[in-house]
Amino acid sequence: MADSPKKIIIDTDPGIDDAMAIFLALQSPELEVLGLTTIFGNVYTTLSTKNALHLLEIAGRTDIPVAEGSHVTITNGTKLRVADFVHGNDGLGNQNFPPPNGKPIDQAAAVFLVEQANLYPGEVTLVALGPLTNIALALQLDSGFAKKIGKIIILGGAFFVNGNVNPAAEANIFGDPEAADMVFISGADVIVVGLNVTHQVVLTALFHKTILEADRDKLARSGGKFAKYLCQIMDIYFSYHKDSYEIKGVYLHDPATLIAAVDPSLFTYTEGVVRVQTTGISRGLTILYNKQKRFGEVSEWCDKPTVKVAITVDAPAVVKLVMDRLIDS
Amino acid sequence: MADSPKKIIIDTDPGIDDAMAIFLALQSPELEVLGLTTIFGNVYTTLSTKNALHLLEIAGRTDIPVAEGSHVTITNGTKLRVADFVHGNDGLGNQNFPPPNGKPIDQAAAVFLVEQANLYPGEVTLVALGPLTNIALALQLDSGFAKKIGKIIILGGAFFVNGNVNPAAEANIFGDPEAADMVFISGADVIVVGLNVTHQVVLTALFHKTILEADRDKLARSGGKFAKYLCQIMDIYFSYHKDSYEIKGVYLHDPATLIAAVDPSLFTYTEGVVRVQTTGISRGLTILYNKQKRFGEVSEWCDKPTVKVAITVDAPAVVKLVMDRLIDS
Repeated sequence: MADSPKKIIIDTDPGIDDAMAIFLALQSPELEVLGLTTIFGNVYTTLSTKNALHLLEIAGRTDIPVAEGSHVTITNGTKLRVADFVHGNDGLGNQNFPPPNGKPIDQAAAVFLVEQANLYPGEVTLVALGPLTNIALALQLDSGFAKKIGKIIILGGAFFVNGNVNPAAEANIFGDPEAADMVFISGADVIVVGLNVTHQVVLTALFHKTILEADRDKLARSGGKFAKYLCQIMDIYFSYHKDSYEIKGVYLHDPATLIAAVDPSLFTYTEGVVRVQTTGISRGLTILYNKQKRFGEVSEWCDKPTVKVAITVDAPAVVKLVMDRLIDS
Repeated sequence: MADSPKKIIIDTDPGIDDAMAIFLALQSPELEVLGLTTIFGNVYTTLSTKNALHLLEIAGRTDIPVAEGSHVTITNGTKLRVADFVHGNDGLGNQNFPPPNGKPIDQAAAVFLVEQANLYPGEVTLVALGPLTNIALALQLDSGFAKKIGKIIILGGAFFVNGNVNPAAEANIFGDPEAADMVFISGADVIVVGLNVTHQVVLTALFHKTILEADRDKLARSGGKFAKYLCQIMDIYFSYHKDSYEIKGVYLHDPATLIAAVDPSLFTYTEGVVRVQTTGISRGLTILYNKQKRFGEVSEWCDKPTVKVAITVDAPAVVKLVMDRLIDS
């Protein structure tokens, strides 16, 4: 049984880099995708669900169920922030794809998560690529969920670096800070991959001719099914990165996080308590207690369960794995 | 006039490392100390004032005025946090020194700061070693203060590292977050020296015999007046660092900041907008916008004046300067 693939569920808000991560998962023999659950983030939840179904149809994997997630934050008290200016109004590069034929299953995402965790206790890896509302709802539904889910790998947070919504906050945590805080201190086996790591994992593009071939060109030239599809939708994502970061390439946030499920050894981690600021100008900020100091005073970090926070990444190896699997499709 | 000493005022809460910084200032031919202003922090303000007077008497510099500062935070809405567990109940290592003979001047600290800035417009460097209440009060008293004070060098904040009160906040900013935020966005010429830098500047002690001589032993052996006095009061400070950080030495927070006034070239700086979180679990957190990203969304960092934040330090050079000047006393 040592070689049987790892069961994963992807909680996702597709999203251009979500599409890449979903394709990567389907291309990874190490993984068995039990289902996709959807959430707001890059687009509203209804559109995330449509896009998840569409991507599975593109991949010919309509056997994989899609469970629609929450349309509102855990407190239902926050105006949603949707990053359609990064991914297009349709979340997939404004390509006017036809609507999917399939439908989501009748279960809500949180119910599906709880059911799968109970069906395969300790065996399911949940890869969370959007705001953490569905996972927080699963924690509320089933007090044993934190221990029954095998592992939660989260794309979120910005540890000791600026955020991407504003200098304090990263988008997924900003999307539902209260939910994120619940998940971080839930006691589940959590790995967090934040901007401090994903900003090191870049798929390159060249805007000027050089003797080198950029990753985007390699994908385009490969003729791989997924590579071709992604090249079709990625233009807006490259433009956003050029305008916002002045880089010739895109950060592989979601794919890098998916790779942490495929091969966790490509990252190093530090273990500590992470809390989320939920009020004021730095709402959505993640603060990791790095244990350098033994504090004399009681704080909100005391006596809370720890998580593993990714600190370094073998970026060339991650990019190579992403490229190889998308080209070989 | 190029060689005339730089006029400085030290806003201080003595404090063991404050004592060291004050002695350093008096030993520095590059500086002319116009006065000390006092604030709560390591001890309550009343005791800070007594200690400031005492230290000037030890130094034989009772010609330097002491102006007592605020006893409460700028909003007067916060219970004061006093770090007497770091510096002793008396702030100076529990040595039962006799009370000072001198008295503070009749002016409040903020009034003194405004007066000196108006007397020497653009020429005064204010070195702020405690919570920033007095400086915020000076900004409120005189709308031109930010432009009339020459420079403000602040010991405060923790940039992209954990704090020292809790994982989010550094003690001086935590002491009065609202005041700190006012100062950071005041438009004054501000240099900020945070824990990310001061934790690199260590005065060493040895708890076991080795062939090397520690800085503390060198001070003790030197017979310098200030060196001898400081060795008398520093035991509690070494114990605190051993218990809290497991280091054999003490961080030179205040002395390093004073050295930034003596020789700013021993540090490198990045320029950006700093805001202070004033609510929630990370109250007192300093967040520097590092300009890596051009944000599409409006945030509390937009269109605010920038400050210079110390990023690297030539720590051996700073420690050597501190040691040389304390030994030669």
